[in-house]
Amino acid sequence: MPTTALPALDPQTLQVLAFDIFGTVVDWHASIAREMQQNYPHVDGDAFALAWRAGYAPAMARVMSGEQPWTLIDDLHRQILDSILPDFGLAHLGNEERAHLNRVWHRLAAWPDVVAALMRLKIKYILCTLSNGNLNLLTRLSKQAALPWDCILSAETFQAYKPDPRTYGGVARVFKVEPWEVLMVATHHDDLAAARACGLRTAYIERPLELGAKHPKDGRRQAGNDLHARDLLALADLLGC
Amino acid sequence: MPTTALPALDPQTLQVLAFDIFGTVVDWHASIAREMQQNYPHVDGDAFALAWRAGYAPAMARVMSGEQPWTLIDDLHRQILDSILPDFGLAHLGNEERAHLNRVWHRLAAWPDVVAALMRLKIKYILCTLSNGNLNLLTRLSKQAALPWDCILSAETFQAYKPDPRTYGGVARVFKVEPWEVLMVATHHDDLAAARACGLRTAYIERPLELGAKHPKDGRRQAGNDLHARDLLALADLLGC
Repeated sequence: MPTTALPALDPQTLQVLAFDIFGTVVDWHASIAREMQQNYPHVDGDAFALAWRAGYAPAMARVMSGEQPWTLIDDLHRQILDSILPDFGLAHLGNEERAHLNRVWHRLAAWPDVVAALMRLKIKYILCTLSNGNLNLLTRLSKQAALPWDCILSAETFQAYKPDPRTYGGVARVFKVEPWEVLMVATHHDDLAAARACGLRTAYIERPLELGAKHPKDGRRQAGNDLHARDLLALADLLGC
Repeated sequence: MPTTALPALDPQTLQVLAFDIFGTVVDWHASIAREMQQNYPHVDGDAFALAWRAGYAPAMARVMSGEQPWTLIDDLHRQILDSILPDFGLAHLGNEERAHLNRVWHRLAAWPDVVAALMRLKIKYILCTLSNGNLNLLTRLSKQAALPWDCILSAETFQAYKPDPRTYGGVARVFKVEPWEVLMVATHHDDLAAARACGLRTAYIERPLELGAKHPKDGRRQAGNDLHARDLLALADLLGC
């Protein structure tokens, strides 16, 4: 299927591009699997990465339901890590090893298209993150991966996790633009659907390998999104950057 | 007086450099005076810039005292602008002209040493803003001046204006470092004194022309700051960057 703009979206009407990070911009699965293979070669890195990530949505749901007070992702990641280590024969890890491993989320690698694409998109648009990652995580991650954001926005900025409307609406309010002047860019349909419900425009990025080579994602076009692109270079093409 | 580090500060102990913006990084006085000269040549641009800036501290004090609810700097700038226009024969300006003029704060020029110095400092440290400017102002200002921040932090992030301790302490909390691992960089002694009271390290930058050539600032070394530098390139030298 060719990656072309739907006629409805005029790139000139956009001012801000807001990027989901985990999966869309950085390859969390391969980065975690690789680090596990290097430091704990007896562990199944693929299964470990998937188990860690699987705890993510339930943890945020606990915070947003009020069951758990406001907690940064770095701390949620640590809680999930502590809960899965015994399943992988790593219950013996001490606090320092756990803290170091938990910071793997600050060391994730960007997909190969990302930096070149962001440099092109940055000429025309304000580029910001809109991630559930906390400011510390997003800043250190972006610095080591050389991601040239104009501004880092986080669930921490709005004290609410996506898909809460305060996050999507917050981007438009921060930059004093209309919701339809913001394009949410993500590889997750639920994220884009929630953004669309707040009036944002949406771009789906395929990332078929987000969950690893053994678990290919169905990246086929779905109705509702303004743009559908193979990767961020294809998105830059679609936006005429 | 040579610009040398006091023996107390080891640059290796720092992780984050937090920069004041107005006066320290950008030349608000010359930028505003120049734009006034271009668009309203009969107005004294020097006096206009000083009058606008003079309303800044009282406006923030009204917000922090609770006399006025939380208000972004863009809106405080507009209130001050509306109040001074009649004094300069510009009471006739319409809303669109006022809105455009108010956004001059998004178009301020950086001092000539800034971009090169930040690129050097960025290799070793996390660079963030800590300004009373709102996120929109700081993002657009930084984008047009090509300032390579790792993260934009603002009074808006902490819902408090400097010199409130929540702002200085907030930088350390966001990046999960000790207060003494943060260096506050500013050309205003009151800003640095408040940062020091929160445990941050401090660097004074001279900027003798902050108030314009007619009103040179006394940039002599004062007791208490860890570093004293002529400009940000000299700061990079002091930090071994």
